[in-house]
Amino acid sequence: MYIPSLGNTHSLETGMENMAKRVAIVGAGVSGLASIRCCLEEGLEPTCFERSDDLGGLWRFTEDIEEGRASLYKSVVSNSCKEMSCYPDFPFPEDYPIYVPHFQFLEYLKTYANRFDLLKCIQFKTKVCSVTKRPDFTVTGQWEVVTLREGKQESAVFDAVMVCTGYLTNPYLPLDCFPGINNFKGQYFHSRQYKHPDIFKDKRVLVVFLSTTGGAWVISRVFDSGYPWDMVFMTRFQNVFRNSLPTPIVNWLIAKKMNSWFNHANYGLIPEDRTQLREPVLNDELPGRIITGKVLIKSSIKLVKENSVVFNNTPREEPIDIIVFATGYTFAFPFLDETVVKVEDGQASLYKYVFPAHLQKPTLAVIGLIKPLGSIIPTGDTQARWAVQVLKGMSKLPPSSVMIEEVNVRKQNKPSGFGLDYCKALQSDYITYIDELLTFIGAKPNLLSLLLTDPRLALTIFFGPCTPYQFRLTGPGKWEGARNAIMTQWDRTFKVTKTRVVRESSSPFESLLKLFSFLALLVAIFLIFL
Amino acid sequence: MYIPSLGNTHSLETGMENMAKRVAIVGAGVSGLASIRCCLEEGLEPTCFERSDDLGGLWRFTEDIEEGRASLYKSVVSNSCKEMSCYPDFPFPEDYPIYVPHFQFLEYLKTYANRFDLLKCIQFKTKVCSVTKRPDFTVTGQWEVVTLREGKQESAVFDAVMVCTGYLTNPYLPLDCFPGINNFKGQYFHSRQYKHPDIFKDKRVLVVFLSTTGGAWVISRVFDSGYPWDMVFMTRFQNVFRNSLPTPIVNWLIAKKMNSWFNHANYGLIPEDRTQLREPVLNDELPGRIITGKVLIKSSIKLVKENSVVFNNTPREEPIDIIVFATGYTFAFPFLDETVVKVEDGQASLYKYVFPAHLQKPTLAVIGLIKPLGSIIPTGDTQARWAVQVLKGMSKLPPSSVMIEEVNVRKQNKPSGFGLDYCKALQSDYITYIDELLTFIGAKPNLLSLLLTDPRLALTIFFGPCTPYQFRLTGPGKWEGARNAIMTQWDRTFKVTKTRVVRESSSPFESLLKLFSFLALLVAIFLIFL
Repeated sequence: MYIPSLGNTHSLETGMENMAKRVAIVGAGVSGLASIRCCLEEGLEPTCFERSDDLGGLWRFTEDIEEGRASLYKSVVSNSCKEMSCYPDFPFPEDYPIYVPHFQFLEYLKTYANRFDLLKCIQFKTKVCSVTKRPDFTVTGQWEVVTLREGKQESAVFDAVMVCTGYLTNPYLPLDCFPGINNFKGQYFHSRQYKHPDIFKDKRVLVVFLSTTGGAWVISRVFDSGYPWDMVFMTRFQNVFRNSLPTPIVNWLIAKKMNSWFNHANYGLIPEDRTQLREPVLNDELPGRIITGKVLIKSSIKLVKENSVVFNNTPREEPIDIIVFATGYTFAFPFLDETVVKVEDGQASLYKYVFPAHLQKPTLAVIGLIKPLGSIIPTGDTQARWAVQVLKGMSKLPPSSVMIEEVNVRKQNKPSGFGLDYCKALQSDYITYIDELLTFIGAKPNLLSLLLTDPRLALTIFFGPCTPYQFRLTGPGKWEGARNAIMTQWDRTFKVTKTRVVRESSSPFESLLKLFSFLALLVAIFLIFL
Repeated sequence: MYIPSLGNTHSLETGMENMAKRVAIVGAGVSGLASIRCCLEEGLEPTCFERSDDLGGLWRFTEDIEEGRASLYKSVVSNSCKEMSCYPDFPFPEDYPIYVPHFQFLEYLKTYANRFDLLKCIQFKTKVCSVTKRPDFTVTGQWEVVTLREGKQESAVFDAVMVCTGYLTNPYLPLDCFPGINNFKGQYFHSRQYKHPDIFKDKRVLVVFLSTTGGAWVISRVFDSGYPWDMVFMTRFQNVFRNSLPTPIVNWLIAKKMNSWFNHANYGLIPEDRTQLREPVLNDELPGRIITGKVLIKSSIKLVKENSVVFNNTPREEPIDIIVFATGYTFAFPFLDETVVKVEDGQASLYKYVFPAHLQKPTLAVIGLIKPLGSIIPTGDTQARWAVQVLKGMSKLPPSSVMIEEVNVRKQNKPSGFGLDYCKALQSDYITYIDELLTFIGAKPNLLSLLLTDPRLALTIFFGPCTPYQFRLTGPGKWEGARNAIMTQWDRTFKVTKTRVVRESSSPFESLLKLFSFLALLVAIFLIFL
């Protein structure tokens, strides 16, 4: 296996490192903003092209659906909590809810853009038409970027390109898979078009998940003892634990855990194939709706009729007024030639999900095209930090052959036999993946040495939630506030909900219990030192 | 302590046992229907007066609020599951959801009324104006009942009266407790008036619970591993366990259990006084709403201003558009003289919550005026069965002095030191209370003798959920189907949600685990018999 160089060695390869490189960034969503930020902090000159008239990407709710931009419904709330989904050097405001609704999420992104003065780099209402290699690409690595702005086409040369267009823009609507859909007299549409619940009032609505047949694990934001699910699930300790056990044991433990909220078999949701971790469904209300009969779980569709649907393994047909196809998205890079990034079977040939494996020069990076079981914001920020180091020549990529091999291995999606087994098309083990990128740029906190110099911090990093602040604790882009942010992460979490503080009424029983525990401890110590 | 006689000894006291007694029943809600049923099955002659134009009491949703009848909102779902809240000899249909929405609950009540031919006994649109003792009451125990029907007053003599008017009819709205409420420019109303959520759209709504200051335990219908909360919580085994531990230990265990879903302190909901079990709040969605910032928990109200409210211990005032007073209900018997039933501090002077303690003749019973931590339907049914046996003279009440003493002791509300400690005004330990009534009429299943004759049934009764079928397993009103209903209670529960059956993919690890368990068992048996 190729071990990449760990940065900090100036490359003189192209002789261009001393002048500010011009970087074109496509899209001003969460990853686009992180990319501008990382370019600025490393002295590059970013220009961000944003097709719509404002920043925020998918987080900007509009009543109308815009082509080429993800579309939210009105009640969307982040499924990754605020302490886990912030930019690593910019915690959410204290008075935000633990899981942030879309309008506050957008507010946060705007505050971030203002704080780091990103707006000056964004050209709004500008569509990127094509990004092509310059004739001298093999020497310069430069790109020609053609844009369209208010009917006017422009062209400019950039030293590098960061593609931040995401994967939630192009709806995937496989109508062919639903026999009889053409006879359906009711309304049907892709979930992307859903905005408000009003249209469903008194209607019988069928929601088609791609995963209905397969089932899914459902996780509540309100996890163990009410702690945010991701702050409990995403700890380095748990990750090491999980990854050192054989996959069948991990799957068994996961199933046990998932069923402790509700037995998925009793609710008709048990995943059919439990050998691979599909994306879990984050939903606080689903089991409550099933137990009160407001949501019925059905098996896959056999036939759509005029006003009803027949399901597999159920004799009775169900009257249906509206069908919502929550069948997901595909992604593509319409402005890129296939020789740059090839998308096959929902997989792009990108080394570590970022750099095209075949390119002669590492001057194009795709940021945020990954679905880690964690937040996309710190993931994108870390990708951008790495990418910028590569663009600057501070971090080297392995030879093309090594990168191609890595992509091919990923495409084969062979289980390693240990830890959770993901479908690797876009999924990856969150902490492992980010640590890998951090290692490339020498920014991975060294827990062993920390244990000697700052044991409290080391233990919090290892046993506590893997909050994004850890990623900017050291290395290029180090944030001075990171340590403090880590040590206060739990305070910030419950600041906004711990509104009614009640003095602990210590019952006589509890006092007694404490006394007994103390005595037992004394005896234990006594016995040990005897 | 007075030990009541266990029925089955014909009383000849009044000499009237041989003719069918005429019983007036006030109200055709769940308890009224049970009372008609119990009268009919014991050969009495019931006449039920129902003020509105249909049966079902509180379970009949109407868009308009009717005076003298409880009022539901559109999305009400029972908080006691179908297997725990049915009439003991009439399970809910198999295809009903586990927790039943109001319209299906009403449907069930109508099916029950048809099945036992109860409609013929109900006079609709008939308001009971007064129920007074006849001049010869001390001898006959008879009552004069004056009713009003379509403007026409009528009067009739009855041998007994069963009052089934419930306690959710008269809203309690203590506006005096909210300083400044008269200056409030927004809308405010009692929760009884809430029907649809539309009026709250885009408004800042304050919901005033009587318990805001005190906090409350919140329980989800989706309990341990997704089993209905009441089927897990209400078992005879758990009840015996709880009641044999000192109250502080039980409270500590309950707190631990309640906090395992979410730490109530972190969510601002921790009960202030944890020595007494207040009514828990049954809600599947509250923590999910708090963690996403859609519901904010506040402390008690300090001052209401024109368009805002100031809370205790919070400096900032909150803009508020609508105040909903969820301040509960009071109850009263406007048609009864105070010498019959006296209501003081929300407590009625009723022996075992049923018989007026002071009456010379036990010919008036109040059915369903109790809030057990369990379903009111089987409770009312059991009360009615006991009451009918008393009316018939088959079961005897203790002397008045004993009954008055019992009521007084309850009013003092002294904790026993063991088990859960309830506010005894209307609350009682569900299983203990029902067992007491069953004992009065010789209908309590004898678990010890069952253990010898039908051990599977005995174990299911003791360790399984205390479903209502148990109450009609034996004694007067015994139901032949009870045993089968008990043995199939879990099948019926998940029949409707277990829609997607997936064959268990037994992983090699699980097989290995099973093998190990089996070997361990063999070794254990070997060691025991060595």
